[in-house]
Amino acid sequence: MSNTVTAVEPAALRARLERARQAAGTTGADAMLLAPGSDLRYLLGGSGSSFERLTCLVVPTGGEPVLVVPKLEAPGYAEVPTDELGVEVATWVDGEDPYALVASRLRGASRVALGDVMPALHVLGLRGALPGAEQVLAGPIVRELRMRKDLAEIDALRRAGAAIDRVHARMAEFLRVGRTEAEVGADIAVAMVEEGHAVAEFVIVGSGPNGASPHHAVSERVVEAGDVVVVDIGGPVPEGYSSDSTRTYVMGSPSEPDVTRTYEVLQAAQAAAVAAVRPGVLAQEIDAAARTVIAEAGLGEFFIHRTGHGIGLDVHEDPYIVGGNALPLEPGMAFSVEPGIYFPGRWGARIEDIVVVTEDGVESLNNQPHELTVLPA
Amino acid sequence: MSNTVTAVEPAALRARLERARQAAGTTGADAMLLAPGSDLRYLLGGSGSSFERLTCLVVPTGGEPVLVVPKLEAPGYAEVPTDELGVEVATWVDGEDPYALVASRLRGASRVALGDVMPALHVLGLRGALPGAEQVLAGPIVRELRMRKDLAEIDALRRAGAAIDRVHARMAEFLRVGRTEAEVGADIAVAMVEEGHAVAEFVIVGSGPNGASPHHAVSERVVEAGDVVVVDIGGPVPEGYSSDSTRTYVMGSPSEPDVTRTYEVLQAAQAAAVAAVRPGVLAQEIDAAARTVIAEAGLGEFFIHRTGHGIGLDVHEDPYIVGGNALPLEPGMAFSVEPGIYFPGRWGARIEDIVVVTEDGVESLNNQPHELTVLPA
Repeated sequence: MSNTVTAVEPAALRARLERARQAAGTTGADAMLLAPGSDLRYLLGGSGSSFERLTCLVVPTGGEPVLVVPKLEAPGYAEVPTDELGVEVATWVDGEDPYALVASRLRGASRVALGDVMPALHVLGLRGALPGAEQVLAGPIVRELRMRKDLAEIDALRRAGAAIDRVHARMAEFLRVGRTEAEVGADIAVAMVEEGHAVAEFVIVGSGPNGASPHHAVSERVVEAGDVVVVDIGGPVPEGYSSDSTRTYVMGSPSEPDVTRTYEVLQAAQAAAVAAVRPGVLAQEIDAAARTVIAEAGLGEFFIHRTGHGIGLDVHEDPYIVGGNALPLEPGMAFSVEPGIYFPGRWGARIEDIVVVTEDGVESLNNQPHELTVLPA
Repeated sequence: MSNTVTAVEPAALRARLERARQAAGTTGADAMLLAPGSDLRYLLGGSGSSFERLTCLVVPTGGEPVLVVPKLEAPGYAEVPTDELGVEVATWVDGEDPYALVASRLRGASRVALGDVMPALHVLGLRGALPGAEQVLAGPIVRELRMRKDLAEIDALRRAGAAIDRVHARMAEFLRVGRTEAEVGADIAVAMVEEGHAVAEFVIVGSGPNGASPHHAVSERVVEAGDVVVVDIGGPVPEGYSSDSTRTYVMGSPSEPDVTRTYEVLQAAQAAAVAAVRPGVLAQEIDAAARTVIAEAGLGEFFIHRTGHGIGLDVHEDPYIVGGNALPLEPGMAFSVEPGIYFPGRWGARIEDIVVVTEDGVESLNNQPHELTVLPA
């Protein structure tokens, strides 16, 4: 039902569509078929809704794009400049076969590239309607475009970063001894919307031993004096671009003995990784910059995940900042730098900023203090 | 990252899993393969996260279930009673092939049923790992179970209904002349969380001519005196079950001449459809009950969508209240009753309640007044 639309310039969208068409052509695909979601939003400026009825942007490599959409949902694309983009809108109503409609535009296709998020419901429907066409993934095509952000995208990420910084700056309002993680998280979610997010997409409040589980969300655990608490929060601003920032707090004096020294190592690791970011450096070198600092302190076994992930219209997208990724960084790439140190059953800590590669270095979009922030016990 | 868990009794989950296994067996499938989402939440009590790494619940029709999950994300399932459910947890780490791991549990499978929401990324990955297995959809199997709600599910829907009723009761705080739909919507979203929703999943504020577009979200249009405004809002409560309720408001005296009479027709149609709900009545008869009232008033051409949709862990699910659906209603089925009348370019109105079929009739989960509510102009 909800269908937010970004006011991206039509000329920028047209250039994206043309680059996508060309990139698809080089893979041997006859067309890309994209379902509602971030790929559609990137190319059309509107993400659409993803319910049981098929909506599909057909991007033939040798023709003009067609947006196949239920007639009922077509008004949701009213702000998409389809005329200026040369995108035909083909509607269908309940009782008609939308897969046959897509197939009718792709006579003789031998290979189609499906957007990574298209649900199985539609993947199998399209397979039935295009039995002669090999299905491959469109992800590798679109991600090449999406990971190089333009100035408007970076500006949206900057606004998202500032919004989540304002929430972290207010953390003493929410995170107090005696409250459950779930209560703290609910308040944070409200504050995220107040500070400019469209939705509070994820809220992690990992207190005490829960901080040692990187993908913990919230629980009924009550925050206690001496707890170290990992708060990892983010979500999209109305333009669709997401925030994602982690800070670690301590309720008074830490109850664990090794917190101060360990946190200093983490802070140095995060700073070293950010400082290493500039054009031409490989993604894996950023990961190594953080990992080396932690390993040299004898804590390598407690840093159990990659250093970061790209961010944009999706919270997780390319480029991944991980060992083995030899991608050279380029200006406009945006990603998280978020090393963590985790002691299972005891406590954990993580520091996360979103950064953007600039022409000659790096810009951090999160600027709250990196120190372990002491809140009242 | 976020992974909310429902406290459903293990015995109830075990019974669901067993019914799902049996239902899958009757279709000739060797296994169901379910990705994170509402199916997983229904069967395990936890919905999981859907990111780029494969998580898949394998439900073989002739064996015990296996939850294949990235090691990093396994703690997110800590509250799922896997031992009591007899669900093995098989973890994998970056660098391993999760599709091969799934395939290793399904030697000789000739047909696998994939959850409708599984993304193409994983559908194609599994096809590569199981080239001999025909892929079909699991949706028809799981929906037979999910559309018959148990008492705990109905209770969660009741709480969701009460939460959204409280938001509609506060509408005069948000919906005022001179504000944009987007401003009104942002305030509503905050109130939805305040009143008990986990997230404000969708917010439609269709003022004036925008009310004539059923799937309109919000826009920069400024609400004016005399506008009729359709407000259709909902989202999940922490248990995962969604609200969805529409009320229509007017800013002072309506600027269009036919509002009062048309709205009376709509109100009668909605009431007639709700009154028709009881066990044994066909889904299409509920649709007809609303449609007949509107058609007899000469307005049939302006009611352009089905009368309702099932609701539960998804906002849209079976049963659909639509012409041609000869499904007999049963106690425990929950769905919306939401006729609308739309005059393109002028105005529209809709009234929507969620109702549950009881042993001998119907219970409405939304109980705000159905009249056209006049707000100050």
